Amino acid sequence: MLASRHARLREKIRAEQLDAFVVTHLPNLFYLTNVTATAGIAVATADRLYLIIDFRYAGAVNALQQSSNAAPDTEVVPVERSYDETLVSLLARLKSSRVGVEGTQLSVSRFNRLRETVPDAVIVPVDEIVERLRLVKDEHEIDMLRRGALLLSAVAMDVLQDAKPGVMEQEVAAKIDWRIKSAGFERCSFDTIVASGPNAAQPHAHAGDRVLREGDLVVLDFGGVYGGYCVDLTRTIALGRPDGEMQRVYDAVLEAQKAAIASVRPGVRAGEVDAAARNTLGRHRLAEVFGHSTGHGLGVEIHEAPRVGPRREATSDQPAPPDDPIETGMVFTIEPGAYIPGWGGVRIEDDVLVTADGVEVLTNVPRDLRAS
Amino acid sequence: MLASRHARLREKIRAEQLDAFVVTHLPNLFYLTNVTATAGIAVATADRLYLIIDFRYAGAVNALQQSSNAAPDTEVVPVERSYDETLVSLLARLKSSRVGVEGTQLSVSRFNRLRETVPDAVIVPVDEIVERLRLVKDEHEIDMLRRGALLLSAVAMDVLQDAKPGVMEQEVAAKIDWRIKSAGFERCSFDTIVASGPNAAQPHAHAGDRVLREGDLVVLDFGGVYGGYCVDLTRTIALGRPDGEMQRVYDAVLEAQKAAIASVRPGVRAGEVDAAARNTLGRHRLAEVFGHSTGHGLGVEIHEAPRVGPRREATSDQPAPPDDPIETGMVFTIEPGAYIPGWGGVRIEDDVLVTADGVEVLTNVPRDLRAS
Repeated sequence: MLASRHARLREKIRAEQLDAFVVTHLPNLFYLTNVTATAGIAVATADRLYLIIDFRYAGAVNALQQSSNAAPDTEVVPVERSYDETLVSLLARLKSSRVGVEGTQLSVSRFNRLRETVPDAVIVPVDEIVERLRLVKDEHEIDMLRRGALLLSAVAMDVLQDAKPGVMEQEVAAKIDWRIKSAGFERCSFDTIVASGPNAAQPHAHAGDRVLREGDLVVLDFGGVYGGYCVDLTRTIALGRPDGEMQRVYDAVLEAQKAAIASVRPGVRAGEVDAAARNTLGRHRLAEVFGHSTGHGLGVEIHEAPRVGPRREATSDQPAPPDDPIETGMVFTIEPGAYIPGWGGVRIEDDVLVTADGVEVLTNVPRDLRAS
Repeated sequence: MLASRHARLREKIRAEQLDAFVVTHLPNLFYLTNVTATAGIAVATADRLYLIIDFRYAGAVNALQQSSNAAPDTEVVPVERSYDETLVSLLARLKSSRVGVEGTQLSVSRFNRLRETVPDAVIVPVDEIVERLRLVKDEHEIDMLRRGALLLSAVAMDVLQDAKPGVMEQEVAAKIDWRIKSAGFERCSFDTIVASGPNAAQPHAHAGDRVLREGDLVVLDFGGVYGGYCVDLTRTIALGRPDGEMQRVYDAVLEAQKAAIASVRPGVRAGEVDAAARNTLGRHRLAEVFGHSTGHGLGVEIHEAPRVGPRREATSDQPAPPDDPIETGMVFTIEPGAYIPGWGGVRIEDDVLVTADGVEVLTNVPRDLRAS
């Protein structure tokens, strides 16, 4: 599995005519090495991978490299003094003359310092090399995401019972997080959102000290990391019997979500999937209160490519941002919403895998506006 | 409180001869505006702050700006199309000709793009301006850290009961995280570590599927975010009666921790605090198995300045990294450890505030090697 990722990386390295490519972004490091750490650098060359790691992770990395999950053709390089000093020594040892770095990840100060301390090499910022490899998931990744999504769906069935009148938002969130970790997730994939009543009008509300009451709509948005892969789910529930406006907004968002899911197949553009949701909400006069994108890619990071958002035009000073074509093996969320200031909000989110003939919805939790 | 932070920032802006300083690092954004968001940009000028924020956070930010926690002299600028396009328009409107950006935070690609799209201005990477302001905590910050540390200590008293033979590491971690959130923390400040038996030989072990057993040493390392501020605590416990070697290593680490705490006062160097711990462990022949720094700053981020680590010399190609002088109002951890491959490990961690006449230990949990 890692061998084929490395092979695809090497194609890119050749295409960019690099002698070495330096990976400092930790999710990319994990993708290439299975190493989970808060620090680390991978240096890929035409035939080897060098993994620079410090004392704290040496034991875990050596154990990993003895296992069947080891990174192939990889030399572990212990940190001497500091990561960047070790990197500079390694690049000198490899006599690399053209070195790529991750342009969207490496800071400008670190880049400038590297340029000064490696005077014999040209340092080239290259954007999103590993990120683009990660766009289409391989078999192992799909397996992790499928299992994660099922496990999260099982958690969700319990979670929907936790939100009751009289309980504080943050207590509900604590219980959700406990359920996620007890279910076998490594961690939550982001800060759990429990947004009740008027708070639900903020798409990214935190769980606060508001106490849930009868008559509330409550948005519950949570996720976990399973085998290193992030899954994500949102349901909106009514406490007590929903009134007519609640039901109307809910039905419109659900219709938008179904339309977006139905539009997913290889070859369409991400912007078309977004338009399917947005146009549906527009027909219900709710497009104005749907201010975020319809979805985001899932994988080693909770937000990654593809961006499933409105197609945007180029301007005089900016090229049009990528409107990724949807490909078999991509995994992303579909999560339209409606957010009405002072009133509240609705969001419904599932995770989907693009298949050769359309779409597989990985999460599986009832979507009726159930009264809790 | 924010006003004085802004005033100190403006002094730096003047000293660097900047017309505007662009803050993209989110912990720095929070420090200057009280805004918690996953995106946002602040632009500070000689007399104003501009806060660029997107739709998702507009409601929360407007509410905040109506409250007593509002950022002073601040104009909220809604995102049009994208953050960077909005930033470019704002800089054009402000006619800034010399613009500072956060060199250690802004990516080289984003920096290069800004340089291309703002041709009328010189864009200058400047390192750690806001981070240096954050080194010494103000009254509000000390209040949050003090309360957070006390709350975490209360949580710890319960946590020490959770780790029992027969329970899996990750179940203990899930319970800890639930306790942290139920106690009123906004979130955990990092992934909780529960490292039992031989796993404790890895300083940054995760909580895994190992089941705790009688005779284990267990390292429990956890923290929470309170009012935006991170606190952090580690205790090591014995399951059953510790044997002689366990007690010997534990006592040495505790002695090292006490020595480091006793060395803290305004005017000493961070390297001297580290040396107090390291030399003590050396006398017990444990210096070789203490491979990390003695501590790290706490604040808006879980790891921030000062670095309480060994003093390092300059080399031919690198200046000596800063050995920060300890100042009144700094808050950091003191957490020596000993990690013995195949055997296990010990770490003891508390949070300290530097006071005019020495040190105040903010956390308060017994440090005996209690048998659980």
